[in-house]
Parts: sequence; C-alpha cells; structure tokens
Amino acid sequence: MTARDASAFQTSWSDFLELAKHSSVQHAIPVLLEAPGLTLDLSDQRLNPAVVEYAQRLLQERNFDALRECLLSGGQANPTERRAAWHTALREPAPATEVALERQRMNDFVRAADSERRWRNIVHIGIGGSDWGVRLAISAFGYQGTWRNVRFVANIDGHAMQGGLAGLDPRETLIVLASKSFTTSETLQNGLRAVEWLQAAGIPDPYQHVVAVTARPEVAQAWGVPAAHVFQLWDWVGGRFSIWSSVGLTVALAVGTDVVAGMHAGAAAMDVHFAQAPLADNAPVQMALAGIINRSVLGYGSLNIAPYDFRLAQLVPYIQQLEMESLGKSVGNDGETLTVATGPAVWGMPGTDAQHTFFQWLHQGSDGAPVDFIVCQEADHGWPEHHRSLLANCLAQREALLQGKDYDTALAECLAEGMPPEQARELARHRVHPGGRPSSLIVLPRLTAYSLGSLLALYEHKVFVQSVVWGINPFDQWGVEYGKVLAKGILRELAGDTGASAGSAAASAAVPKHDASTAYWVKAFADSLNGRNGS
Amino acid sequence: MTARDASAFQTSWSDFLELAKHSSVQHAIPVLLEAPGLTLDLSDQRLNPAVVEYAQRLLQERNFDALRECLLSGGQANPTERRAAWHTALREPAPATEVALERQRMNDFVRAADSERRWRNIVHIGIGGSDWGVRLAISAFGYQGTWRNVRFVANIDGHAMQGGLAGLDPRETLIVLASKSFTTSETLQNGLRAVEWLQAAGIPDPYQHVVAVTARPEVAQAWGVPAAHVFQLWDWVGGRFSIWSSVGLTVALAVGTDVVAGMHAGAAAMDVHFAQAPLADNAPVQMALAGIINRSVLGYGSLNIAPYDFRLAQLVPYIQQLEMESLGKSVGNDGETLTVATGPAVWGMPGTDAQHTFFQWLHQGSDGAPVDFIVCQEADHGWPEHHRSLLANCLAQREALLQGKDYDTALAECLAEGMPPEQARELARHRVHPGGRPSSLIVLPRLTAYSLGSLLALYEHKVFVQSVVWGINPFDQWGVEYGKVLAKGILRELAGDTGASAGSAAASAAVPKHDASTAYWVKAFADSLNGRNGS
Repeated sequence: MTARDASAFQTSWSDFLELAKHSSVQHAIPVLLEAPGLTLDLSDQRLNPAVVEYAQRLLQERNFDALRECLLSGGQANPTERRAAWHTALREPAPATEVALERQRMNDFVRAADSERRWRNIVHIGIGGSDWGVRLAISAFGYQGTWRNVRFVANIDGHAMQGGLAGLDPRETLIVLASKSFTTSETLQNGLRAVEWLQAAGIPDPYQHVVAVTARPEVAQAWGVPAAHVFQLWDWVGGRFSIWSSVGLTVALAVGTDVVAGMHAGAAAMDVHFAQAPLADNAPVQMALAGIINRSVLGYGSLNIAPYDFRLAQLVPYIQQLEMESLGKSVGNDGETLTVATGPAVWGMPGTDAQHTFFQWLHQGSDGAPVDFIVCQEADHGWPEHHRSLLANCLAQREALLQGKDYDTALAECLAEGMPPEQARELARHRVHPGGRPSSLIVLPRLTAYSLGSLLALYEHKVFVQSVVWGINPFDQWGVEYGKVLAKGILRELAGDTGASAGSAAASAAVPKHDASTAYWVKAFADSLNGRNGS
Repeated sequence: MTARDASAFQTSWSDFLELAKHSSVQHAIPVLLEAPGLTLDLSDQRLNPAVVEYAQRLLQERNFDALRECLLSGGQANPTERRAAWHTALREPAPATEVALERQRMNDFVRAADSERRWRNIVHIGIGGSDWGVRLAISAFGYQGTWRNVRFVANIDGHAMQGGLAGLDPRETLIVLASKSFTTSETLQNGLRAVEWLQAAGIPDPYQHVVAVTARPEVAQAWGVPAAHVFQLWDWVGGRFSIWSSVGLTVALAVGTDVVAGMHAGAAAMDVHFAQAPLADNAPVQMALAGIINRSVLGYGSLNIAPYDFRLAQLVPYIQQLEMESLGKSVGNDGETLTVATGPAVWGMPGTDAQHTFFQWLHQGSDGAPVDFIVCQEADHGWPEHHRSLLANCLAQREALLQGKDYDTALAECLAEGMPPEQARELARHRVHPGGRPSSLIVLPRLTAYSLGSLLALYEHKVFVQSVVWGINPFDQWGVEYGKVLAKGILRELAGDTGASAGSAAASAAVPKHDASTAYWVKAFADSLNGRNGS
C-alpha cells in the first residue's frame, strides 16, 4: 500500500468508527444472515444499514476483493512466510489430483482397518493445530463413546503420555503422529515413548503400529514410519487449518469417513458463500465487522464463545487457536507498529455450565465481553424437555445481556419478594444489570458434520476479513518461535551443560542474560533434576 | 464506611496507583514468598518495596484486619446475603462437631463401598461449584484412570446425560447428586433421568443407588434419597467453595479419602499463613496486590492461568469460577457504582499445549495478559527428559514475556540465518516482542493433595484481599439470577403456554418485552419443538 492509499484508508477507518459509534443496536427487525449449514443472527451487534454500507468502501480501499481471490486461488496469502494459505483447496468437492489421492489413501486405510476390526485403540499424538480439530470432531460425534478407544497426547508433560497409554493393550493400539514439520518437539518425544512402549511389549515391528501425517514424508520415513503409513499434507496448509488434511485420519477411524466428508462439504459450501455472497449478506464479512466494532469502537478486549451444546466443548480451544494465533499481532503488513488494537482474547465454555461459572462477570462485571452464542435447533436425544430448557437458557442469557435490568425494576422485584423497603432499596442496587452488551447468535439446524464444517469455515473467513481490515498477516506466528529458542538454551542448562548457559560466548545473539528469578529457578530445577540438594 | 473514610481511602488509592506506576519490575534479587505447600515468585510483577510498604496503609484504611478476622471466624462476611462464608471451617484440623461428623459419615460410606468393591461406576451430577473442584481433584490424582469409572454430568443439554450414562451397567452405578439448594434445575432434571435409567433397568429400589450432597437434607429426602445417603453441607458454605464439603465424596470414592484429607490439610495450612504471616510476606496478600496493579495501573483486562502440568487442566475452570463469580461486580459494598475496574476475565490452558494455541497472542498481540505460571519441581513419572523439557519451556516463556526481543536482536537473528539483508530488515519487524509483560510463578515441590489444597486456598484468599481493596462483596452472585428468571418465562413460551409470554399481564415486572430477534427465535424454536413447520 502506498502512503497515499494509507492516508485514504486512515480517513475511511476513522469515518467508519465514527459512524459505528453513533449507531445503536437495531431492534425493529432481526438481522439474519442465511449461510450454508447455519443462520447467523447479528441483531444484538452495533451494525446498522449505514455502517454496513460504509464498510463496503472500507473493504474496497483495503483491497479486499483481490486479497480474498488470492486466498481462495492459492496465491501468496502469507507474505512473511512467502507461501499460500490454501486450506480451502483441501475441502473442494473436486480437488486437485494430489489432494484427491491422499483422501483416497486415507479412506482406504480406514476401510481396511474397519473390515479387519483392527486397532481397537488409537493414541493420537499431535499438538495445537494437529490436535484441537481432531478432538473437536470426535467429541462432537463420538460423545457417547466409539468402538475404538481414542486417547490424545499433546503436552510434553510426561504425565500426559503416562495417562495416554495407561491400561491399553499395545497389540491393538495404533499410534497416529501428526506434525506438519515432523520436528515438533512434543510430538516426536511422545512418539518415541510410544514406540518404546510397543517394543517393551514385544511387538515384533513396532513401526507397523505407527502412522504419520506430515508435510515432510521423507523425514517421517527416516524416523521409521513405513511409507504406506505416511499421509501427506502440504507446505501451503497452515498448522491451524490442518483438520482439513489427512490429520482427519483419526476422526475417520473414530467416527467414520462420512464425518470427514461431511465436514469438507459444509466448509466448501461456506467457502462458496464467502466468495460469492454480496458483502451485505456475507456471513463471515458481517461477523468480522461486528467484531471490529466491538474491539475498536466499544473497546472490548475479549470475546466469549458460548456453545449451548455439550458436544461442542472443544470448539472453544479450536477457535481460541484460530483467532489468537491469526490475529495476535501488533505489526502491520507494511512492517509498521499498528496504532489500532487487533484480535481480542478468546475464551469460553459450553452453556449452561458457563452460567454457573462466569456469567456473573458477563452480566455485572466491570468490562463484560461480547458473546458468540451457538446452538442447535434440533437435538439428537430423546428428552425434549432438556432441549427446550437449553434453548430457553440460551435465549434468556442473550436477552439479559442486551436488555439489562434497571434500578426501578430491581427494586420492584425485591419488594415483590416481600423485602422490607429499606432492605429492598439497598439490595436493588446489587441487582442492577447495565445491559447493552453485544452478542451474536449462530443457529445450526442440527449438529451434523456439514454444519460443523460450515461453522469452522465461518470463523476462518471471519478472521481473514478482520486481518484485511487491520492490515496484518493472519497466517504467520513468529511469536511462538522466540520461546522455543529460549527453551532450548535453558534445557541445555538444566541438563548440566553450563557452556551453553545464557551470557556465554556460545549463546546465540537472541538469548538474553537471565533475570535474577530465572537464574534462581534454573539452578534450583537443575539441582533437583540432577539429584543435588539445592544450596 | 463514612464519607470521610471514603475520601481518605480515595487519596491512599490514588497514591498507591501513582507509586506503582512509577515502579519498575524488580530484577536485582528474586521476590520469593514461601507459603505452606508452595513458593510464590512475584519477581516479574511491578511490586517494589515502596509499593509493598504503602499497600499496608491502604489495607489498613480498608479495614483489612477486621474483615479477615470476620471471614476466618465465621462472621457475616457476605452482607448482601446476610451470612457467613466460612469455607475455612470445613478444612480445620479440629473442626466443629457437625463438620467432623459429616467427614466421618463420608469416610464410613467410602470405606464400606471399598471393602465391598461396590460402585464400579460413579455418575457425578452437579454444576458449577458442585462440579469443578471434583473434576480437578480427580483429574489431578486419577489421570491414569481409577478403578472406579467416574463420569460427570453438569449441563442441562441432554447430550451430556446421554454420554454420561452410555455403556454403563446400572447395577454397578452410583449416582451422586450435588446441589447446595437441591433446587438447581440442571442437577434435578439430570438426576431424574438417572433414576429413570435405573428403573428402566429393573433395579428394585433405584434410590438406593443415589447419594445426595446438599444444605437442605429434607428436600433431598423428600425427593427420594434415603436419609443415610444424604450428606450435609451448610448455608455458610458458598457454592464455589463446596469442594471442601461432602461434595468431596466423589473424590474420595475415585482417588481415596487420603486425597480429601490431604487437600484439607494443605488448605488449612494456607489459612494459617494468610491469618498470621506479616503482610509483606503474606502470599495471598502480595499476589492480590500484583493483580490489582496489573488491572488498575497497567490496564490489563484479563488474567491467564498456565499450569505447566497436564494434571491441572481443570484448574482453569475452577479458578475461572472462583475469580469471576467473586470479583465480577461493579457495585461496591456501599451500593454505589464503582469507579474502578474490578476482576479481570480469567482464562487459560496447560502449557505446553497453550504455547501452540495462544501464546502468539500473549507475546505479540496488542494487549497481552498477565500469566500465572504453575509448575511442579518434581514429576511422578519416569521420564526425566520430559520433565526437564517442561520446566525449560515454562521458564523460557516467562522469560520471553518479560525480556522481549528488540529490533536489532531480531535483525541479527535473521541475518545469522543467512537471509539477504533487505529481507532480514523487513522480517525482523515481525519478530519483535515488546516484552515487559508481567507474570507470577508458583512452584509446588510436587503435585500432592497437600500442595493442591494450599494452591486453591492461595487463590481464594487472593480473591478475598482484592475484594477488600475494591470494596465489593466477593460472596454473592446476583448476576446469575436474572437470566434464570428470563429463562423460566421463555421455557413456558416454548412449551406453548402463550399466556406466560413476555408482555402479558401475567409476566413478572422483571421480564422485559422481547426484542425482535428473541421473539423470532422463541417462535421458531417453539415451532420446531412442537413439530410445526415454521412460517
């Protein structure tokens, strides 16, 4: 963007914020956006027709059409890493040959395993993007249990592996290692423990029990995984989008290849909607604008995800990673430090659990947070009174956040409960709800693989639109590298290699001298790891 | 507090904030506070000796000594509900007779069940405070599985119950219903489903398979639970503190009565520390001050909890409830709307998973958040290389947050990687970490019941101290009531009782007329629940 463009954009941005500031929540008719697999209701957001219209100009100035086209056609959407971010290619109904081939290989593997009733246990080893999507799909569709017993091991903490293997029969266990680079420290170390465990049980060829999903098949093969057990993904798939790749193998083994195919179909339909729907009817675009207003006009620092569905508990960490790795940046594409705040903290919990955990804070806390309510119109169980109650709670909490309760109403309520007037006047102050707190409502007709796929793609594209408006690269994650570098140095120190300690000539330029506290704990932990008493 | 006191307090408050604003993170020596069961390191917080000293005056003016005494001696610590908040009485080594008696009854029940090897399955039904503590203790000490198979059902969502019962043999299943009031809608409805399930399996007296923990034993008995199966808690125990009561029955059945006793001992030791340690050495007090500075001086809106321990994943929702229900208030004890922001949003995830999920945002996002790192010096598994790596990652992330990385260092790093100078200069901007982000480090010698108990009590008392400084009641939760009232009305509408719809004469004063969107969905959901096609 040239300097002149930048200044034009600054003007539109200020105008947009000003317009949004003076718009109020629209009440007269519900603001419903129909998209494949779901309905998005933005009635409780500060989007009125004038803001929506003006936003089109903002997006135009930010070159949105071309950037969207670049994303969806596999152009270099990730400039700092000089590559595409082409996850949409993985869910195309008619994909490229290499993609189709891997889908077929995965389905063949699952069909063979199913027909032999093999692999009673799966230990899925992966972390971050190689983990959350798999957990989400399996807890969504396997919440009543699956005939295969699936365990997840992500953390380097040895207790995770200890718990992951506990009680399993190695002869019936398949280890799935998912790592795009096949260098992820957690995954490779945990993988080694799994192989040792197979070996220790006398399995003749433990690697026949191991499958790998990676963008570097040669590295996985060198590690020992047989070629027929290596499934491919590609450099142009970001880690946090890898559920659309062969990382879905564990999903297919646990809840069926139809679930994987259904999620692909739903996401692909949302891709088409995102590409083609007019901006004013485009669900990801409008959801993005609402989020930008919440952040930049109303000043909210966080976003709460509240799936009113027990099966979607894992949606929270999934969206957390997607939003916070993508939008947790403070330097723009032009290399300048941004003057606007970017992505909020994302957190949440299924309702109604959340109502008994932190809704107090959402209603009466100082800050509050916008809430994304997500609910299925129809349930998959036979207790209509439970579903009625769930739906009622979801609508009621949203309404309470919007409407609030003023002092007079609270007072009338206290008096109606028979409280003496003086006590009522005092207590009523504590029962006031400020109200006016924004939220979105996403309604799925029913929890199907199709609707879950479309829901995930909705959030993906929403995040992309926000990155375009803020002018940041949503596909890199430089911030996770620095801690890894420091960890390597401390690891050497803990292992007793003092030559590698910070401040020595051998240390890299990027490793600072330890602060006093870090130095203290490095010594204390090294002493206890190496069986010395601390001084 | 009189008007004159209030103005004196305002002055001290402003002076405190000013002092903290001009203090920097202390580097010369680590700031370590030794407390029973753990060490708290506040070196990376903006607490210097002058701030700590001044804070004593602030606490004095806020009447801290008397309020703490009131809390710990069972006085009326909860004025809006006119009762005590005497959870500390439940963990006393020499408790009151009624408390001792219930402990004994619980232990006897467990001993009898264990000796008969009865109750192979437990379905624990409770929500919020009747749920999180139990999940936490069992996942901490039963992460490798327990001989009893424990399921948790909290949500009103029928899929939770469906999944909770799936595959269990009713003859070997004990249902534990935990509800302080014994009116919690989720718990009673889920309890009914469980009894029906027992009945449908031909169990002659299903209620012999049911245990209740409640402050209203007579209601539980009227519901059908045999008197010998009703365990008592008391009105003076807040729901979010109920893990210290007989709600621990499920913990004792799953991981042993020693775990419950150990947690009591650790928490009781922390109570003594909180009561007696000088303010400058008092761990909960100092942790509270650090949090207040992060909120009120540095402006952080959220707090991240990062247990570097797989076994402590459930600590996150536990602390979330504790902090956000307690401190999510914006009206002071005097009934006035506060002019200062109170409790932050609390969220988190165990490391190293969190590093692959949202640490990007913590390092390079616009806002960042203070982090509570929690780690055990010693592990309970046989893979020292994993524990070394876990400890290294924990220290490294904390150091990276504090020290940051400037442009010149990032540039040197890029050049050292062999990048062409122009590319290096561009990319280095994206690798800058601002640094200066505060954190606490809590080190447990090892994960024992004692240390877990002390950790929970540390947070409880920290929250109490913050409530004293902000002048709010941490023990009520009026904000959760309003949504319940609205849900009842909508529930009647969904069931087709249009006479009860909002806006009708029959509706309570507190129920507002629906906004357009709520009205739309009430109709749509009612139509689908009642088998009508929507119009």
